[in-house]
Parts: sequence; C-alpha cells; structure tokens
Amino acid sequence: MPVRALWFSGGRLHLIDQRKLPESTRILRLRRIEDVAEAIRTLTVRGAPAIGVAAAYGMVLAARQRGWTPERAARLLRSTRPTAYDLFVGIETVRSTWAAGGDPLEAANAYREKIVEECHAIGVAGAPLFRRRPRVLTHCNAGALATVEWGTSLAPLRVARERGAPIFVWVDETRPLLQGSRLTAWELRQERIPYAVIVDNAAGYFMREGDVDAVIVGADRIARNGDFANKIGTYEKAVLAHENGIPFYVAAPWSTFDYDRRTGQGIPVEERSPDEVLAIQGYRTSPPASLARNPAFDVTPARYVTGYITPGGVYPPARVSGALSASRGQKLRGADS
Amino acid sequence: MPVRALWFSGGRLHLIDQRKLPESTRILRLRRIEDVAEAIRTLTVRGAPAIGVAAAYGMVLAARQRGWTPERAARLLRSTRPTAYDLFVGIETVRSTWAAGGDPLEAANAYREKIVEECHAIGVAGAPLFRRRPRVLTHCNAGALATVEWGTSLAPLRVARERGAPIFVWVDETRPLLQGSRLTAWELRQERIPYAVIVDNAAGYFMREGDVDAVIVGADRIARNGDFANKIGTYEKAVLAHENGIPFYVAAPWSTFDYDRRTGQGIPVEERSPDEVLAIQGYRTSPPASLARNPAFDVTPARYVTGYITPGGVYPPARVSGALSASRGQKLRGADS
Repeated sequence: MPVRALWFSGGRLHLIDQRKLPESTRILRLRRIEDVAEAIRTLTVRGAPAIGVAAAYGMVLAARQRGWTPERAARLLRSTRPTAYDLFVGIETVRSTWAAGGDPLEAANAYREKIVEECHAIGVAGAPLFRRRPRVLTHCNAGALATVEWGTSLAPLRVARERGAPIFVWVDETRPLLQGSRLTAWELRQERIPYAVIVDNAAGYFMREGDVDAVIVGADRIARNGDFANKIGTYEKAVLAHENGIPFYVAAPWSTFDYDRRTGQGIPVEERSPDEVLAIQGYRTSPPASLARNPAFDVTPARYVTGYITPGGVYPPARVSGALSASRGQKLRGADS
Repeated sequence: MPVRALWFSGGRLHLIDQRKLPESTRILRLRRIEDVAEAIRTLTVRGAPAIGVAAAYGMVLAARQRGWTPERAARLLRSTRPTAYDLFVGIETVRSTWAAGGDPLEAANAYREKIVEECHAIGVAGAPLFRRRPRVLTHCNAGALATVEWGTSLAPLRVARERGAPIFVWVDETRPLLQGSRLTAWELRQERIPYAVIVDNAAGYFMREGDVDAVIVGADRIARNGDFANKIGTYEKAVLAHENGIPFYVAAPWSTFDYDRRTGQGIPVEERSPDEVLAIQGYRTSPPASLARNPAFDVTPARYVTGYITPGGVYPPARVSGALSASRGQKLRGADS
C-alpha cells in the first residue's frame, strides 16, 4: 500500500492524523482554514513539504469561507510554525493566485502535483547513491507522510529498493515526538523494507562499528550556502557521519530552499512545549516541576553535507547555490514573517 | 536530603528500586544472593560503582546461605552484566577474603567505604574545573544512585556548588531507560541544583549555541590508554564536545579502570532487550513486529577526553596510564569472564 499523507476531495482536506500513528490510521476531514492551521500547529500533519501542501489547501478552504481575504488567510497560516520554508511557499503560491482573481483550488492542486513530482525526481536522482551503500541511517520522518507521496529522504531508498538494492534502514527513533519509530518505521513496514529502530544515542555507535553506509535526511529549510535546518538531532548525526567518514545526504524539493538567506545563521528555530520532553504519551519521565528545553530543530552547517539530492540532481555544497539559481525558484513575498 | 543508593543492615541489603524513580521511592530488602543478581540484571540497582558494591554485599549474603562457595557465588554475580568493571572488582574483593577465611561483611563494608571516599575525592579534585565553567552537560546518571553516595560525574558539581559556583546542569534524558530525566533530575532536585532536561538529540544544539561550558560523564570501564565504555550516547556527546571545543571530562573511581586492557577495543558491550527501545513504560512506540537494536553502552576513544577526574587528581589521556600504576590498583583474577 503506497502511503499518502493528505488529499483534497468533496470540498474537504483529508489528512492522516499523524499523532495517532502507528496505533491507528485515523483520517481527518477539514472544512475550515482554522482547522488546517490547528492541524499544522499540533503536528497532526507535519514534514516541511506536507505542511506546505496542507497550507495551500487551507488557503483554498478560506477562499470558500466567509470573511477571509488572501492576506488574512496567509497571515493565519504563516503563524502556525516558523521553521519549514515550504510552508511559506505553499501559502504564497495560492495567495498570489487568489489575490489575482485566479482559482485557488487549481493553484493548490498544481502545487501539490509539483511537490509529488519533485519528490519522485529526488528518488530517481538519489537512488544510484545507495546501490553500493544499502545500509542507510535516517533521522525523523521524511517519507510520504512528510511530503504527500514518495518522501524526500525515503524516496531514493524506495527507488533503489525497486531496482533491487538490498536497502536496510537504521531508523533513529527521534525524540521527543518519535517520528522515526512511529512514522518512518510504519512507512517502511507498509512497503516491506527491512529496518531496525534504534535510540538516537546509538546512531554514533553503529556508525563507528561500520554498520552504516550512508546517512540521509530531509530538511525544513536550506540556505543558499547549503546550511540547513532539520529535526533536532540532525546536526549531531551530521557531525558523527563526518567524523566516521560516512556520506551524509540531504534530500529536498525546491520549496525547501530559502533563496533570500545566505547562510543558516538566523533561521528561526521553533521551541515547543517542555511537556514534549518531560512526558511520553502521558507517562511523566521526570520529577514534578522539572524544567526542560525543547528546540524542535537545529541548523547543520553545509560543511558536513556530502550532497543535496534535489529534483534537478545531486549537488555538493559548493554547487548547490548555482543549482538553485538554475531552478525555477523565485523570491517570496511575505515569507519568514 | 543526601541520596544513598544502598546500605546493609539487619542482615539484608537495602536498595532504592531505581526502576520506580522518580514516581516512588521504594526500598527493597534483599536476603539472598539470587535476589541481588536479579536486581543487578534488571537495573533495579545500576551504575558501575553501585553494582560493584551491591555485588560485594551479594557475596556476603551468599556466605550466609546454604550451599554457596566463594567461587560459585562469584560466578553467578559475574554473569549478571558484562560491561562495568567495578562489578568484577567488588565481587573479587569479597571472594578473595571469603576464600581465605576472612569476614565477607568486613570486606564488603571496607569496599563500600573505599568507593564512597573515592567519590568524595573525585568531587574535591574536579570541583575547581567547573568554577568558571558552571553550565555543565551530563549524560545518564552517575550520581549518588550510581555510586552509593556523592556520585562520580555529579560529585565535582556538588562540591563546586557547595563552594558557591553557580552550577547549572543540562540533563540528557538518556534513552532508552531515561536515567537522566528520571534519576539525575531527581537527585539534582533533592539538592536544589538547577537543571534543564533535554532530549539526547538536543545536546549538540546547545553546545553549538554556546550554552554548554563543559561535559562530564561517568564510566563503566576505562582501558589503560583512556578509551572508556559508558552509557550509549556518550560517544556522540564526546565527538560533539570535541567538535565544539568544549572540555569533556570522565569521572571514575579506581575500580572502573581495567588494568589488563590496553585499549577500548574488545570491551564487552551489553546488548539488552529490543523492548527497551520499542516501548516506553508499556506504550509501544513502533509498529508491531518492528526490529530494534539496543546496545546499552558505547566505547569512546581517549582522544576525545580532556581529563579523567580520579580520586588521585585530574589527568589528561597521556598521563592516565601512569596515574593508574601509581594507584593502589591490582590485577584481578576472574574478571571479564
């Protein structure tokens, strides 16, 4: 069964409730922009490309509700989460069409198709990298759930596997919200790709043991020089891969690239509730009144990256900026408010 | 309230059940060596120095039970866990006394006192390091719970704090068993030392942000060249500290040093049940039939260590071997079976 994170039909945005996976596959049907904003804020839908598409459809819903202007709708959705660049791209794509009198649904559908196609292109571009390096570690979830279909980091592994590579995935569980053990493991299981879940602490151990051939992750925002934000812990894995001479790849569609930002410095890093750290599904893991800090992302310098797997091919850090200019990307108004 | 992990009275070994903390402070009273072996195996008592002392008292109990010889008792206790060297030292100390017709209880009490004194000496030796570097990250629990009293990694922080240093501790939660968020946080809270719990993934983030002045950890076994085994994830934190120019200290009593082992290569690393990774307090974190790998320790090369804080002072890697020979350590028979 191929996984699809969201779709629009009957005037509603349908989402898999990712908070409930893997225990249950609950589908939400949203009719109002406010519900889409809430779903993004609560990580009911998550993953940079997926929240971009969800927000695009949130704009579509607003256009059918009373009292919303393109600007007001965009403002609400932009306020949901600060780090993923795709969110702003998805919103802006529909906002500009709507404001110009075009059809918001058409714009959102086209945006969705573009993301799905780009993810597939990422899979095709990246697959050859893993033919001889089939034991791949990944962090968080950058699969279909995070991107509508295919995934970013999982796309090359899916394509490589289809072509016969003996792919095996080391799945970092990814505390605090366990997107690895809950979501990536669930996706891999659907497709019968072998994997083992490990605690995030063990990634370095298996790298040093020689059991990891490559690392691949998605991204929430990539600066022009290749510095990128991704799930907290990505920076740790990148440093450890570098230290152990293991190739480290970042897979992302063009919507993740922030053209206006020269380096990773100053990318806004969302800090979420301490409760995500201090409790796991209601079980308190720490004494009452403990303090916690909970940055949801970190920024990894480009020097730790072997290559960026994009819809246009695989580029080393030194060439990613050029590839970016050659792509059809454009500056965004209103992003990163 | 000063924390004490275990004590012997009325012919029984008293242990805080560390699986229940911080929810409840349950004291177990053990009368049989078999119960002590089980308590060590299940991490009811854990931490290298503490399991050494618990095992020493396990030998005492065996000497009072029917049908145990010093050799047979030692064999049972040695089989409980493979990595911590202190375990073998504690067992051997009482075994040799018992086999020679001496008083096992006297030997165990003396061993216990030695460990407590050494931990205090570690505190005094290490405290000055943190006077100007008060924001310290620690991994796992190497406090009083892990060592009877004082702790190894926490001892210098306690002494520094008594002397007025504004100590603040970054507490890695330490998956899979959460010894950081459950136990270290609990100890720090008892003593009103400020701390913040973070997911293990966030340690690198705060190092890179400049919020961590130093890292300190305990050890389960240290080879002659300074390579050391400690809780899974220690290697990751050591590499990240090195990459960020942050001093990284290892605190341990002499019983943690494995004189017979030249380097860390081949230190036995315990692999525990996958269930510790796939479920948290009964909540399944991964789809049914997921595979997991669960190494409980990793080995960190000496080159990442700034200094070893021992009862005899603080030594850089190049000098730890000499310090070791100068200490009153001796070769063990029967260890590392």
